[in-house]
Amino acid sequence: MPQKPKRVVESKTMMTELVMPNDTNPLGNLMGGYLMKWMDIACSICAAKHCEAHVVTVSVDHVAFDHPIHLGDVITLEAQVTRAFNTSVEVYVEVFAATMTGENHRKSNHAYFTFVSLDSQSQKPQQTPEVIPLTAEEKKRYESAPRRREIRLILSGRMKVENATNLKTYFTDIK
Amino acid sequence: MPQKPKRVVESKTMMTELVMPNDTNPLGNLMGGYLMKWMDIACSICAAKHCEAHVVTVSVDHVAFDHPIHLGDVITLEAQVTRAFNTSVEVYVEVFAATMTGENHRKSNHAYFTFVSLDSQSQKPQQTPEVIPLTAEEKKRYESAPRRREIRLILSGRMKVENATNLKTYFTDIK
Amino acid sequence: MPQKPKRVVESKTMMTELVMPNDTNPLGNLMGGYLMKWMDIACSICAAKHCEAHVVTVSVDHVAFDHPIHLGDVITLEAQVTRAFNTSVEVYVEVFAATMTGENHRKSNHAYFTFVSLDSQSQKPQQTPEVIPLTAEEKKRYESAPRRREIRLILSGRMKVENATNLKTYFTDIK
Amino acid sequence: MPQKPKRVVESKTMMTELVMPNDTNPLGNLMGGYLMKWMDIACSICAAKHCEAHVVTVSVDHVAFDHPIHLGDVITLEAQVTRAFNTSVEVYVEVFAATMTGENHRKSNHAYFTFVSLDSQSQKPQQTPEVIPLTAEEKKRYESAPRRREIRLILSGRMKVENATNLKTYFTDIK
Amino acid sequence: MPQKPKRVVESKTMMTELVMPNDTNPLGNLMGGYLMKWMDIACSICAAKHCEAHVVTVSVDHVAFDHPIHLGDVITLEAQVTRAFNTSVEVYVEVFAATMTGENHRKSNHAYFTFVSLDSQSQKPQQTPEVIPLTAEEKKRYESAPRRREIRLILSGRMKVENATNLKTYFTDIK
Amino acid sequence: MPQKPKRVVESKTMMTELVMPNDTNPLGNLMGGYLMKWMDIACSICAAKHCEAHVVTVSVDHVAFDHPIHLGDVITLEAQVTRAFNTSVEVYVEVFAATMTGENHRKSNHAYFTFVSLDSQSQKPQQTPEVIPLTAEEKKRYESAPRRREIRLILSGRMKVENATNLKTYFTDIK
Repeated sequence: MPQKPKRVVESKTMMTELVMPNDTNPLGNLMGGYLMKWMDIACSICAAKHCEAHVVTVSVDHVAFDHPIHLGDVITLEAQVTRAFNTSVEVYVEVFAATMTGENHRKSNHAYFTFVSLDSQSQKPQQTPEVIPLTAEEKKRYESAPRRREIRLILSGRMKVENATNLKTYFTDIK
Repeated sequence: MPQKPKRVVESKTMMTELVMPNDTNPLGNLMGGYLMKWMDIACSICAAKHCEAHVVTVSVDHVAFDHPIHLGDVITLEAQVTRAFNTSVEVYVEVFAATMTGENHRKSNHAYFTFVSLDSQSQKPQQTPEVIPLTAEEKKRYESAPRRREIRLILSGRMKVENATNLKTYFTDIK
Repeated sequence: MPQKPKRVVESKTMMTELVMPNDTNPLGNLMGGYLMKWMDIACSICAAKHCEAHVVTVSVDHVAFDHPIHLGDVITLEAQVTRAFNTSVEVYVEVFAATMTGENHRKSNHAYFTFVSLDSQSQKPQQTPEVIPLTAEEKKRYESAPRRREIRLILSGRMKVENATNLKTYFTDIK
Repeated sequence: MPQKPKRVVESKTMMTELVMPNDTNPLGNLMGGYLMKWMDIACSICAAKHCEAHVVTVSVDHVAFDHPIHLGDVITLEAQVTRAFNTSVEVYVEVFAATMTGENHRKSNHAYFTFVSLDSQSQKPQQTPEVIPLTAEEKKRYESAPRRREIRLILSGRMKVENATNLKTYFTDIK
Repeated sequence: MPQKPKRVVESKTMMTELVMPNDTNPLGNLMGGYLMKWMDIACSICAAKHCEAHVVTVSVDHVAFDHPIHLGDVITLEAQVTRAFNTSVEVYVEVFAATMTGENHRKSNHAYFTFVSLDSQSQKPQQTPEVIPLTAEEKKRYESAPRRREIRLILSGRMKVENATNLKTYFTDIK
Repeated sequence: MPQKPKRVVESKTMMTELVMPNDTNPLGNLMGGYLMKWMDIACSICAAKHCEAHVVTVSVDHVAFDHPIHLGDVITLEAQVTRAFNTSVEVYVEVFAATMTGENHRKSNHAYFTFVSLDSQSQKPQQTPEVIPLTAEEKKRYESAPRRREIRLILSGRMKVENATNLKTYFTDIK
C-alpha cells in the first residue's frame, strides 16, 4: 500500500553541531570523516521522516571539502529529500560553518545521499512516498535527480553508459 | 562600547540529536543528564550568537522531565534569547521528541538557562546586547524575565525576598 | 509491600571525574551541561541504591555555576538522599573541584534532583523506602524537603501558591 | 625541494575496528556515517605517511554501501596511495567485514579519497612525493587515477567536460 | 627539596562508574580493557594527589578478571598509595561491582600500578613524598612493596634474579 | 568436538589508532589506561578469530610503559596467539608508535593477555584449538608459554610455588 506523496518541507531536518577537540586533527581542523558522519545522521533522520520508516544509507555521491572548519566552530546541516525512486529516496544536505560567536559564516559543502526504506516487519526494501517539490530550488533538484541516479548506477556497475538516457539527453542539450 | 540590540530570531538555534545506546539507562530511556547536556550546548550556541562573544553558563532554572524519551528517538531543541541584563542573557529552550520515523511527536520539556558574556581579551564579563522581542510569545517571555531573575537571585542568596519588587507586584496582581 | 526505612549513609555515592578535552568549551572551561550530566549519573546511582530499584529523573532544581572548572581538574561529586515522598525520592549532590595535583580545592556547586522509583515488572512508579536522617546536616535537609517539593509542584503547575502550606509557614516564620 | 618517490607498500595502512553499540542504528546495523569516519581516518594516516606531512581531506568519490554490517562485527580497512598530483595524493581504501569469530568474511565496500599535503610551517599546500606502483593492481589504479581526477574536477566545477582529455580517450577506447 | 611524608588517607580516591552499552562486548559484559582504563584513571588521580604533581603510568602488575561485570552494573574503584620509591609511587586499586540497585555486591579484582612523578617545569622525574602507613592493611602492603618492585625490575630486565634480595628472603622465609 | 589446530598467522590482528585529544592527559601524553583498552580490543579480536568463538579477558601480565606517546601519534598494535591451554589461549601484543607523518617510529611496549573461549549456547568455557607455531619467534613464545602460565597461577593463588615445574626447570637451567 503506497503512502501518499509528501512535500519537501515536511521532513526537512536542521542539525547543529559544535566542533569539539576530539573531532579535530592535530592542526585543529575538523576531520572530513567526522563531518561525513554528521551529514549521514542528518540525512538519515530526514529520510526516515519522509518514509515514516527505518532507512539505511546505500550511497553517497562525490563530496568535496573546500574550506577548513576549526575547533569551536558551529556547524549547521540542512537536509531535505529531493526525489523518490521505488524503494529509495535521495537526500540533499548543505553544510554551513561559522565561529561560535556567529562570525565568518560560510557554506562549507554539500552532498547527495541515497537511502532505502525498510519494512518494519521483514526489514526488506519497501515503496517510498513520492516527493512533491514546491520551490524553484526544490524543482531543480527534483528534475536533475534521475541524472544523478544514472551516474550512481553506472559507477556501481549496474547500468551501462549507453543506457543512461537522462544523461545522454542532458549532454546533448548542453552542446 | 555597547552593541546594538538584536531581534530574537537572529540567534535562534535549532539542534537535532538522535538518542544512541550510550545515552540511555538500562531501561532504554534517555538519561536526564544527557538531555541537560544537549540543552546547555544548544543554549550556549544561541547565547554566543546573540552576544557575538564566548559565554559561560551561570545557572539553569528548575527542569522537569515529564515524558520518557526512548532509544532511537529524535530530539529537537529550539533555543532563543528572551532578555538581556547587563552582562548576562537569559535563554529559553524547548525540547521536542518523536520516533525516528516521525511518530509520537510531543513536547518533552523546557528550561531557562542564564549565560554571562565574556570579553575576548580579559575574559571578564562584558555588556550584552539588548533583546528586541517581536512576537506575542517573545514579548511574554521578555516581560516575565525580571521575575525569573529575582527568583534566581533569591535562590543564590544574592537578593532578599523583601527586595524582590517584580515578584511582589506579580503576587499582588494575582490575588 | 513497603521496604523498610534506610539511613542516608547506606546509599551515599561518591564519584570522581577527570575533566578531559572534550568536556571543555573553546575557553578550556568545563561546559555546564557536562557537569549536569555527571550530577545526574551520581544522583541516579544514589537513588537506585536507596530504592533498590531502577529510577528515572523527574526534575532538577535551580543549579548555579559560580566558579569555572578547568581542563585537567578533578571533580568530586557526593550524592545523598534527603527524603522520600510516596513514589519519589529527593537527592542532594555537592560538587567539589581541585587541580589534578590537589591544589585549589573548592566547592563548585550543589543541586537537588528528584527521582521516581519504578517497579521492575510494570515499570510503574512504586513506593520508595523512607529516609532516616542522623546527622544535623541530614536532619536539616530532611526538614526543608517539603518546602522544596512545594516549590517544584508550583513551578510545574501542579499546586497553587495558596495551597503551599509549608512554604507559607516558612515565610511567616521568617518575618 | 621535492621528496623522493615512494612505493605504495611504504605507507600502506591497515586498521581494525570493532562495531560497538553506539556505532549502530536502531536496527543494529553500522551507520554509514561511522564507516565513512573510519575510512577517512585510515586514509589520512596513509596519506600523511606517504607525504611525511600533515594532510587534509579534500574530497571523497562516490561511496556505495552494499551489505549491512552488524553490531559486534570486525571491520578491516586497508588504505594505500594510488598516485600523486602536484600537491595532492589519491588514496584507495577497501573495507572488509566479518563476525568477531571470523565468519561471514566479505568485502563491504571501497572508495577513493583525495588529500592535500600541507607545509608544516606555512600550512600551505606543498609538493607530494610521487607514487611508484609495483603490482599489477597498483599499476591499474595508477593508470586510471587521471580519469578519476578529471571526474572530480568536473563535479566540482573546476574543469569543463570538453577539456577532460583522459576521460574522452577512455570513452573512445571503450566503443 | 623533598616534600614531607603523607598518610595514605590523604590521597585515597574513590571513583564510581556506570557500565554503559559502549563499554560492553557483544555478550553484554564489560570489556577488560575498559575496566583497566578506569583503574588507570583512578590510580593516576590518587598518585597525582599524593605527589602534588603530574604523574605518568610506568607499569601495571598482573591483573586477573575473575567475575564478569554486566551492562548497567555500578563499578566502584578505590585507589590508595602503598609506598614511594625515589621518583616513583606504587598505587593499589580495588574494584567492586554491584547491580545499579545495589544487589550482588562483590569484589571484582585488584591491581598495583606504578607512577613516576614529573617536575612541572622540566617534566623530568622528581622525588616523591614518602608514604606513612597507619592501618594494619596499609602496613602490610607497605612491607610487601619492595618485593613487588623487584619482580617488576626483573620482568623489565632491569634487575637480575640473583640480586632480588627481598624476594630471596621472602622465599627463604616461606620454606 | 575439538577444532583442528591453527597457525598463528590465521588470526594475527593488526590495529591502528590515532591518539586524539581525549586520549591524553593534561601533559599531552597518551594515558596508560587508554593504551591498555586498545591492547585488550586487539587481543580480543585475535583470540576470537583463533577460537571462532566469543572470548573474555581473564588476565593481563605485567605491562610496562617505557616511552611516552603523544597527541597526534599513530599507534600500531599487532596481536597474535602464542599457545592454547584447554579452554584458554594466550595472546601476545606488540605496540609501536610513530608521529602521524611516520617519524620517530619506535616499539612502545608489549604484553601477554589470556582469554577464555565461551560456548555460544551455554556461555561456559569450551576447548580452544591448538596453536601451530612456525617461525622461530613463534616457537620461542610457544615454548615459554607454560612458564608464564605458572606465574599467573601462582600470582592468582591457584598454584603453589613448589608445584611450578616449568619455572623450576627454567631457573635450574639458568644457573
